[in-house]
Amino acid sequence: MNAEIIAVGSELLTPQRLDTNSLFLTQQLNDLGVEVTTKYIVGDNRDHVADAVRRAMSRAEIVILSGGLGPTEDDVTREAVALAIDRKLVFHAEISDHIEQRFRQMNRKMAEVNRRQAFVIEGADILPNDRGTAPGQWIDESETCILLLPGPPHELKAMFTRQCIPRLERVVPKQVIRTLVFRVAGMSESDLDQTISPVYKKYDNPVTTILAGDGDLQVHLRAHGASEPDALGLLTEVAGPIDMLLGERIYSRNGDSLEAVVGELLKKRHATLAVAESVTGGLLAQRITSVPGSSTYFLGGFLTYSNKMKTELLGVSEETLQLHGAVSKETAEAMALGTRRRTGSTFALSITGEAGPEPIESVPVGTVYVGLADAAGCQVLHRVFLGDRARIRVFATQMALDMLRKKCTVVS
Amino acid sequence: MNAEIIAVGSELLTPQRLDTNSLFLTQQLNDLGVEVTTKYIVGDNRDHVADAVRRAMSRAEIVILSGGLGPTEDDVTREAVALAIDRKLVFHAEISDHIEQRFRQMNRKMAEVNRRQAFVIEGADILPNDRGTAPGQWIDESETCILLLPGPPHELKAMFTRQCIPRLERVVPKQVIRTLVFRVAGMSESDLDQTISPVYKKYDNPVTTILAGDGDLQVHLRAHGASEPDALGLLTEVAGPIDMLLGERIYSRNGDSLEAVVGELLKKRHATLAVAESVTGGLLAQRITSVPGSSTYFLGGFLTYSNKMKTELLGVSEETLQLHGAVSKETAEAMALGTRRRTGSTFALSITGEAGPEPIESVPVGTVYVGLADAAGCQVLHRVFLGDRARIRVFATQMALDMLRKKCTVVS
Repeated sequence: MNAEIIAVGSELLTPQRLDTNSLFLTQQLNDLGVEVTTKYIVGDNRDHVADAVRRAMSRAEIVILSGGLGPTEDDVTREAVALAIDRKLVFHAEISDHIEQRFRQMNRKMAEVNRRQAFVIEGADILPNDRGTAPGQWIDESETCILLLPGPPHELKAMFTRQCIPRLERVVPKQVIRTLVFRVAGMSESDLDQTISPVYKKYDNPVTTILAGDGDLQVHLRAHGASEPDALGLLTEVAGPIDMLLGERIYSRNGDSLEAVVGELLKKRHATLAVAESVTGGLLAQRITSVPGSSTYFLGGFLTYSNKMKTELLGVSEETLQLHGAVSKETAEAMALGTRRRTGSTFALSITGEAGPEPIESVPVGTVYVGLADAAGCQVLHRVFLGDRARIRVFATQMALDMLRKKCTVVS
Repeated sequence: MNAEIIAVGSELLTPQRLDTNSLFLTQQLNDLGVEVTTKYIVGDNRDHVADAVRRAMSRAEIVILSGGLGPTEDDVTREAVALAIDRKLVFHAEISDHIEQRFRQMNRKMAEVNRRQAFVIEGADILPNDRGTAPGQWIDESETCILLLPGPPHELKAMFTRQCIPRLERVVPKQVIRTLVFRVAGMSESDLDQTISPVYKKYDNPVTTILAGDGDLQVHLRAHGASEPDALGLLTEVAGPIDMLLGERIYSRNGDSLEAVVGELLKKRHATLAVAESVTGGLLAQRITSVPGSSTYFLGGFLTYSNKMKTELLGVSEETLQLHGAVSKETAEAMALGTRRRTGSTFALSITGEAGPEPIESVPVGTVYVGLADAAGCQVLHRVFLGDRARIRVFATQMALDMLRKKCTVVS
């Protein structure tokens, strides 16, 4: 079964805005076994929207519109759909009363214009909106269901999840979808693809997608079958060999982020972590502390952006800095050891490097050293990353977290 | 004049991907005075793409397709456009030779399938691609220009900027567009809109858009006129009163980020900065150091996530922590003063707070204290932010940077 999604709103046609509701809707539809075949982004123009509705209806069994249900004259979705399927709009006093009541609860008077939201397409089922004033509408028109949903994401998500999915499940032919996500670190996108494409290229079902962004790689597998064992069987046939091929480079099989996985490993070992950041300027700590509950294992650390700070806060000797430079194996090591000494943490990670745009020392832009100290001593890894300042910094933190992950996996 | 944009690629219909090329294209088209009236995202299906082309041609003077120019059978854009306008595809040996040569330069042999990329729609002008193998195409068909552009953003951007804009300038009626961006801190989106809407609501030209995200507010103004003085006059008529109404809450009139503005202020004063972060866990430093050249004023600082670190690294007394708590005015003050003392910086910023999800101390989630120490002493501001962990952390750093901005603006 196919769906087409129409996002309505002139603001979605500016250079600053993207329609992100369709990502949520696509995920939900895919989970039901429905494919999205076309998406439209249309301005607040009744004829354009009606035209898109007619075109979508001619090709898809499910047509979903988001946005354009507000109270102003710019909000044309109701009129446009009524026009496209040649039905009347009917005023519902009980909706108007409900909206008026909402305003009263907020100690405000409903503006006359809000009555527009009480118009419903003849024969449509009303989808109540408990998070806003605009009700949704569900219309069965010959072979197609047409859904009108509010634009604000939290209203749309609640309405779709609670009211539309149960109804769609009765409409969509029964099939079972099973998905699996591998998250992978320590290899490039092309290496990953070269490694696993001989496996997944042979299969249309499951569908395999590789996503790359900010040094993080994900392999998404989605299988659909007539039954649970059927779908799981298809999924495993591809996921099994991929899992084997990637081995320890897979850091998560449930979607967890690298910082969350590292956090769990530290918690299990009752270990603590401290960091010293130069080139990444806080990004590593920010990732670590973005995990709720990270205060149980993360102590804190040092932002030693200047050489003086490296010496004064971490005890990196001036000799080391002069002889080897701030971006060197020796400095990374001294930073990690100094951090562990001053905080008493189980593990200490240090990052020093050159993110550009202009190199300050005599190392190429993209050079990164990561140090990892524990009771046994300190190891340092060296890499040169391509790309701009932001990319180099993200890749450096990914490298540091992955180094700690491997250390914790080996020892535990 | 109107344009419609068609993004081609089944991967753009998955829950993970968005078509972002259209944002760049919209910006460029708007700057020429062209409005985008509909965007389509269509899978790798020849008939669907041809259908979208026909529909777009019936309504817009400019139709731009991105993607689907690759060498595989999935790449259907050439065939689809040829079908839509009923023209033949013609093989161009010189394009094939050029692609073969590119492969040779990379020490690789061209696969036979790449010859597909040498097919050009009859009568089309070829747009050479110096960043990839797929050439673009420009077709004049009755009243419409149809542009076929490659999908990879760096190829599309280079081709559009260098080859399409000069040609479009000759097609599009001459008009001058002038834009202005105010970036604003220290107020909510609804406060901002209430303050300035009485001014901008009266005008269709310039178009005024308010963008809000992550504690950052932007007011975009775009005026078009027959001449430069005309456009500037229209722009100023609205921008002037908005500027007056917002006053010092505007931190940038050229698009610069808050961290860049603060950096410039520090540089001008030959001042240095150090930070101590608890709740934001490195996010403040990460923002400061995302600015190239920040090492001239940013010394570094302390990540004092645990109370022990606050005491050991910054000298926050255990009495202060016990009596007032880690999330308190007194702790923020001791953190800022301790940071300045230990680093010798001109300014020291400290942030302590509670980002949740579960409050650890007896303060509500969202509570933030920011301390700012200088030679004269220390001031502390207190706020409670709504939202999730990530949002509270971003708002806290925005608050800290804005506090420093105001301090530097007043004193300098």
